[in-house]
Amino acid sequence: MRKGEQTRQEIIRKAAPIFNQRGYDGAALSDLMRATGLEKGGIYRHFSSKEALAAEAFDYAWRETLDARIHDLNTIPNTVDRLKQLVANFVERRGIIPGGCPLLNTAVDADDGNSVLRERARKALRGWRSYLISMIRAGIKAQEIRPRIDAKKLATLIISSLEGAIMVYRLERTEEALRAVQAHLDSYLETEVRAPSK
Amino acid sequence: MRKGEQTRQEIIRKAAPIFNQRGYDGAALSDLMRATGLEKGGIYRHFSSKEALAAEAFDYAWRETLDARIHDLNTIPNTVDRLKQLVANFVERRGIIPGGCPLLNTAVDADDGNSVLRERARKALRGWRSYLISMIRAGIKAQEIRPRIDAKKLATLIISSLEGAIMVYRLERTEEALRAVQAHLDSYLETEVRAPSK
Repeated sequence: MRKGEQTRQEIIRKAAPIFNQRGYDGAALSDLMRATGLEKGGIYRHFSSKEALAAEAFDYAWRETLDARIHDLNTIPNTVDRLKQLVANFVERRGIIPGGCPLLNTAVDADDGNSVLRERARKALRGWRSYLISMIRAGIKAQEIRPRIDAKKLATLIISSLEGAIMVYRLERTEEALRAVQAHLDSYLETEVRAPSK
Repeated sequence: MRKGEQTRQEIIRKAAPIFNQRGYDGAALSDLMRATGLEKGGIYRHFSSKEALAAEAFDYAWRETLDARIHDLNTIPNTVDRLKQLVANFVERRGIIPGGCPLLNTAVDADDGNSVLRERARKALRGWRSYLISMIRAGIKAQEIRPRIDAKKLATLIISSLEGAIMVYRLERTEEALRAVQAHLDSYLETEVRAPSK
């Protein structure tokens, strides 16, 4: 990697927690300068605008977050067990990028505002849901999941309830909501989603 | 109501959508002036700071939002039916204050930032959850809800999954996630929460 590209990646990595914690408008140039140790010119030599940097920072934060949630799932053979592990990963691996879930933060921050960030968040949501839908459909095909399960609805339910629990967790700073949602999803996956063993 | 108090309430009412759509940092004085039709001095004669105005605007936005979700529930005699109507109200009455759910917005906006707003959001969450917990406990007492149901966990599940679905809805601008969560909660309430009739 060339030196310029290295610096660019370093700026993205250090800017990500700032945007994730303070939001787009709240992330001041002075915060970004402090975090990166660079002057304004040193930062904007690598990015055309604050928006361009925020978009890269979001993509980085989301990639790291999603990776923490899914990177070890492929070793689990059964799809329902894999979904349960994904829920557990979501609940337990929270601090990847300081500030909470980048998808939730950017979705709420950008839904009425910045259209570039909104599009990145939409893409992140679509990607995550597609990943879940593929997993669920494969589980139906493998007869590990009941055939009447609607893959898109189940994926949406998992994402919505976990992201909502993150909001409650961030406000209360206790795990209660995350654990309540995890217990509910686990029980639902066992009793309504898992195909009866033959 | 005295003239000064009327103006104060009018400022709160007009500032609420601005803060709800743009967040605390994103709500510029120029936006607030445009919305209220007042000069800076005319606004800050009634509030000690932007923070004080934002806090009042949040309380107003939340009061209106919660009221829309619950105001007609008392006419429904059975507790499980009342919970199902609350879920339906949440899904259907979304546009009370432009910008989405004030609780979700302010929670995400303030969780790493403004401590006054964070405290208001915490209080709103606690109040809403207490309302749900009381309703569920009364339902258990009335033998309309199974005695093994944990009122706090059920309240948390309802709040988390609906708020998460609002995030998805706001990003996608389709009702799909809200309807998927509603269908799931309805089915759960019928099959696992409602006490079997004697």
